[in-house]
Amino acid sequence: MAESAVKKIAVFTSGGDAPGMNAAIRAVVRTANHFNIECFGVWEGYNGLIKGEFIKMGPRSVKNIINRGGTILKSARSLEFKTKEGRQKAYENCKKEGIDALVCIGGDGTFTGATIFNEEFGIKTIGIPGTIDNDIFGSDNTIGYDTALNTAMDAIDKIRDTATSHNRVFFVEVMGRDAGFIALNSGIAAGALDIIIPETRDNIDDLFETFVKAQKAGKSSSIVVVAEGEKLGNIYGLAELTKKQFPHYDIRVAILGHIQRGGSPSCADRVLASRLGYGAVVGLMEGRVNVMAGLQANKLVFTPFREAIKKHNNINEDLLRISEILAI
Amino acid sequence: MAESAVKKIAVFTSGGDAPGMNAAIRAVVRTANHFNIECFGVWEGYNGLIKGEFIKMGPRSVKNIINRGGTILKSARSLEFKTKEGRQKAYENCKKEGIDALVCIGGDGTFTGATIFNEEFGIKTIGIPGTIDNDIFGSDNTIGYDTALNTAMDAIDKIRDTATSHNRVFFVEVMGRDAGFIALNSGIAAGALDIIIPETRDNIDDLFETFVKAQKAGKSSSIVVVAEGEKLGNIYGLAELTKKQFPHYDIRVAILGHIQRGGSPSCADRVLASRLGYGAVVGLMEGRVNVMAGLQANKLVFTPFREAIKKHNNINEDLLRISEILAI
Amino acid sequence: MAESAVKKIAVFTSGGDAPGMNAAIRAVVRTANHFNIECFGVWEGYNGLIKGEFIKMGPRSVKNIINRGGTILKSARSLEFKTKEGRQKAYENCKKEGIDALVCIGGDGTFTGATIFNEEFGIKTIGIPGTIDNDIFGSDNTIGYDTALNTAMDAIDKIRDTATSHNRVFFVEVMGRDAGFIALNSGIAAGALDIIIPETRDNIDDLFETFVKAQKAGKSSSIVVVAEGEKLGNIYGLAELTKKQFPHYDIRVAILGHIQRGGSPSCADRVLASRLGYGAVVGLMEGRVNVMAGLQANKLVFTPFREAIKKHNNINEDLLRISEILAI
Amino acid sequence: MAESAVKKIAVFTSGGDAPGMNAAIRAVVRTANHFNIECFGVWEGYNGLIKGEFIKMGPRSVKNIINRGGTILKSARSLEFKTKEGRQKAYENCKKEGIDALVCIGGDGTFTGATIFNEEFGIKTIGIPGTIDNDIFGSDNTIGYDTALNTAMDAIDKIRDTATSHNRVFFVEVMGRDAGFIALNSGIAAGALDIIIPETRDNIDDLFETFVKAQKAGKSSSIVVVAEGEKLGNIYGLAELTKKQFPHYDIRVAILGHIQRGGSPSCADRVLASRLGYGAVVGLMEGRVNVMAGLQANKLVFTPFREAIKKHNNINEDLLRISEILAI
Repeated sequence: MAESAVKKIAVFTSGGDAPGMNAAIRAVVRTANHFNIECFGVWEGYNGLIKGEFIKMGPRSVKNIINRGGTILKSARSLEFKTKEGRQKAYENCKKEGIDALVCIGGDGTFTGATIFNEEFGIKTIGIPGTIDNDIFGSDNTIGYDTALNTAMDAIDKIRDTATSHNRVFFVEVMGRDAGFIALNSGIAAGALDIIIPETRDNIDDLFETFVKAQKAGKSSSIVVVAEGEKLGNIYGLAELTKKQFPHYDIRVAILGHIQRGGSPSCADRVLASRLGYGAVVGLMEGRVNVMAGLQANKLVFTPFREAIKKHNNINEDLLRISEILAI
Repeated sequence: MAESAVKKIAVFTSGGDAPGMNAAIRAVVRTANHFNIECFGVWEGYNGLIKGEFIKMGPRSVKNIINRGGTILKSARSLEFKTKEGRQKAYENCKKEGIDALVCIGGDGTFTGATIFNEEFGIKTIGIPGTIDNDIFGSDNTIGYDTALNTAMDAIDKIRDTATSHNRVFFVEVMGRDAGFIALNSGIAAGALDIIIPETRDNIDDLFETFVKAQKAGKSSSIVVVAEGEKLGNIYGLAELTKKQFPHYDIRVAILGHIQRGGSPSCADRVLASRLGYGAVVGLMEGRVNVMAGLQANKLVFTPFREAIKKHNNINEDLLRISEILAI
Repeated sequence: MAESAVKKIAVFTSGGDAPGMNAAIRAVVRTANHFNIECFGVWEGYNGLIKGEFIKMGPRSVKNIINRGGTILKSARSLEFKTKEGRQKAYENCKKEGIDALVCIGGDGTFTGATIFNEEFGIKTIGIPGTIDNDIFGSDNTIGYDTALNTAMDAIDKIRDTATSHNRVFFVEVMGRDAGFIALNSGIAAGALDIIIPETRDNIDDLFETFVKAQKAGKSSSIVVVAEGEKLGNIYGLAELTKKQFPHYDIRVAILGHIQRGGSPSCADRVLASRLGYGAVVGLMEGRVNVMAGLQANKLVFTPFREAIKKHNNINEDLLRISEILAI
Repeated sequence: MAESAVKKIAVFTSGGDAPGMNAAIRAVVRTANHFNIECFGVWEGYNGLIKGEFIKMGPRSVKNIINRGGTILKSARSLEFKTKEGRQKAYENCKKEGIDALVCIGGDGTFTGATIFNEEFGIKTIGIPGTIDNDIFGSDNTIGYDTALNTAMDAIDKIRDTATSHNRVFFVEVMGRDAGFIALNSGIAAGALDIIIPETRDNIDDLFETFVKAQKAGKSSSIVVVAEGEKLGNIYGLAELTKKQFPHYDIRVAILGHIQRGGSPSCADRVLASRLGYGAVVGLMEGRVNVMAGLQANKLVFTPFREAIKKHNNINEDLLRISEILAI
């Protein structure tokens, strides 16, 4: 490979943490080292850029982190970076350090910031999708998503022990404010009776009908998986309406919450993060800017930030249909 | 061993399910079989007694269940068994089936029912403590408690990934309406900054003081574990008061909820359940009635139901002190 | 959908068991039920066909199995089915039962048998790839592969605790007689120093060179992941040669073995199995015969058995390169 | 508490690593800090004493380690410390650093070294039992034992999936060169047909008899758990003899190996380690020397090293009997 025009890069994590971010940081640092690119870590996302908190990183700085959840560089949302003044400071710090390019690990917000920053100051930016929600266009899966699926599923498996033992109905809320990927996949995997997600216009009567069908089929307990962002009404509201309709049901609500963001990353997430961390550095060396590294059909691809932010992976229609057929 | 006076027993699970109940059922069934005692399973606790739902069980009926959470016999709380009429029906069903004795797996409520039933109708009853809360006197640990500890701790470990990555404060609620065992032990194990339990008269100012100490010590993120039944006020209230006191804190609340009841039982719980299931049958053969089988200092002991219900395991004072010293 | 020409199907598992086979069985049974196709389970693969061990299955027969490893229908390799007489018996049993079509869950051997059976007797056959080795053409992943990756990785993570604590070198053997997929992916995910697989002509000197590089880089402990089928020599031989070359190394060998076949399937495997189980039944209804249902680039595809058996998924060259760059 | 005579302590881990050692280190360091005792960590056990590798440790040095397997201080067996010259050097380094007392985390070998060191040079020593084997007298459980039980059991659970699916017999070897605790408890928990341990004079004919009984009872697959140190012959030999006796059995051998030493410690192990770490420092402050801190019947106790090394926890006879009764 020809001598890279990029000599000094910085990597940071921004937005909500996701399992596999550390594996991505490791891959960026070690790939940079391999190609004789100097590499810095930035503390707490864009805030670290503004405060000038850069740490020199070498291959040993990232040892024994591939298996750890969270992010060793810490993450934060930065209000100051949304201001011109904040970005100006960030730019000056980058200039002072001699940083040519930034590797930004995060989601929508992260990439929006990177796009503006690049347009204003010309600093090269490249992105790696790290978010459990899988709501970013340009990669079949985002880093952290597979782990979150397994965490949600394991939790629902545990809840099912009680549901089955007590003939109960459980409404379980999983993460996903705008996207139903976690709900749909963990729901199918956990054998949910119904799955309610933001992307579909579900009707409470459809749910009631499903309950009736389940009863007829002899199902004595049920789990309904609900994505945070569903449009049918709050999960407690759903539970209440269901109780009114089926007063003899023993209904409970469980909100899985923050456990879904943590934990040691799955094998798929560690491999994905390793490939995208490598891909981001190689992308920079090839002159790619303002794009996100992703994996589609098992191939490394680059998608412009604007596109990654605007478009969305669609819910698989087949999967929706399968979830209904297999439920009872 | 001399010929047992007990010829036909029935086993059931009652109250909230707990991991290891299946291992206990298995032990009861196989021990009975070993000693040529006929064994029946009763469906859904006391309700099954009332409805006469007995299932003949042999060694093969309980294969491949030792590793499964929940209870294959199902569990329920029975309002009808609280009435004399209900118990009368239950007794008649036992008589009809020729049942000499009942092995009752559950908690306080289960043993209260068993005591009354024995006193009214003379049916032999023996108990096995199955509840995650560990709030029963007469056994160092109850079945399910060790598993629940590991489940709660694993969940808090995951939350800690996010807490550390974002420098956040998390209030995490674990189960325990009357007892702080889960909170205290999972809190120590997860490195909680503070642990708030029903047994101690905590003061919000103590909590605030701890936060100040933690800050001085350079701790950048913290987890406070809160037992359901703590007396200091609702977990959301605690979070709010803390936010008022420390407005710069990024505070979140997580309620672990029902995941704590499920899951494959830990080794300790499976062994405990196996020993107590065996112990209960042997206890019956030795003529013990209206007592609970337990393990104290690694020895099988029997405690009268009345005592098991009335007394309580005390929170270890050493442990409380250690939790404070190790927190920061 | 038009009335299906297929009225009665039978499903079985054959060859080595893989996590997710139960999820596939469940999907086949429930999809068949949904489309009013009668469905039977066959006991112990082709042996059950020969012995005529069919069990009628309905939606409730497959409840609470989606989360269980192994196969409830049991599996076996059948020598008798390799004879014409054996297959003749199998055919007669199918005819007697009125079976139109077979859904065969397994690997290479399973599909070879199905192809011959179809060609000889005209019984419709369709396949679902269930094997942890991922060595079947026509599906990006086979059922069980993702779970096996996580199991192998978790085991290596544990071994790494000891390797790091004692500054040791561990040679860890993972499954994969003909394919290095498990080794390569679990090796990258576990941060292995080197990965030795059947597909590459590794040289012991390359390995030694890597050790020297690692030493120079200050790495104090290392893990080398070795696929069962690697061509460089037995894992114990490798360890011995390494010890000779680097006498001061504290070297250990660990063979992960059969734990890699078991365990509760991952979310990805349960969803994959659900989709392929559904796909197989739909495929039969659409008149597809002697093909395997697979998922490529997230889409359901059908590949002729002959092709699925003959061709092989190639090891990703990028991944090989990444594994080297990220190792040190 | 009165002013402690101990002003400066050093803590190290020695012998095989065990999950929970980090939790013990953390407890020692934080308890020392709480009582204004200066605390150092020693690198790689006795080797670090000899080389003078002391690291000053404060409360922040041990953050985020309670959940990690292995030992951050590393461990090693030291041949040099077995010589007078080695110990002399170690003593001089301690003197130079001003170390009053040593907290030694490890097993038999560790405590033997500590005893001699104390007798020769008068340095105060106190021990914490850290070993997965549970073969040390003076504590009901050693640190790491509970985690190892769960790891072994989880692995056997996975193997059982395959055993059941294929009607196989598996011989599974677990750790335990001199003690059968892991084998007995994980074997009971995993529903093993037979358990072969060093403490009992098993006879191959007893094993064969058990197989015959199992067959008669209709058991179609079986797991035999074997402790490393059993006296009946190598596990492969056992498998071979069994194959000769029962030629129709499909028999496999699995050696769990080093995975049993690693992994994130269980809740019980973290709490135990926290209590013993605290106990060791408090013991030193109370003037206890050449003793091991342990937990018996949930109470902190101190046992002279000589006694801890010489005596052994006995295998529970009840448990042996229960394992037989529940097996079939």
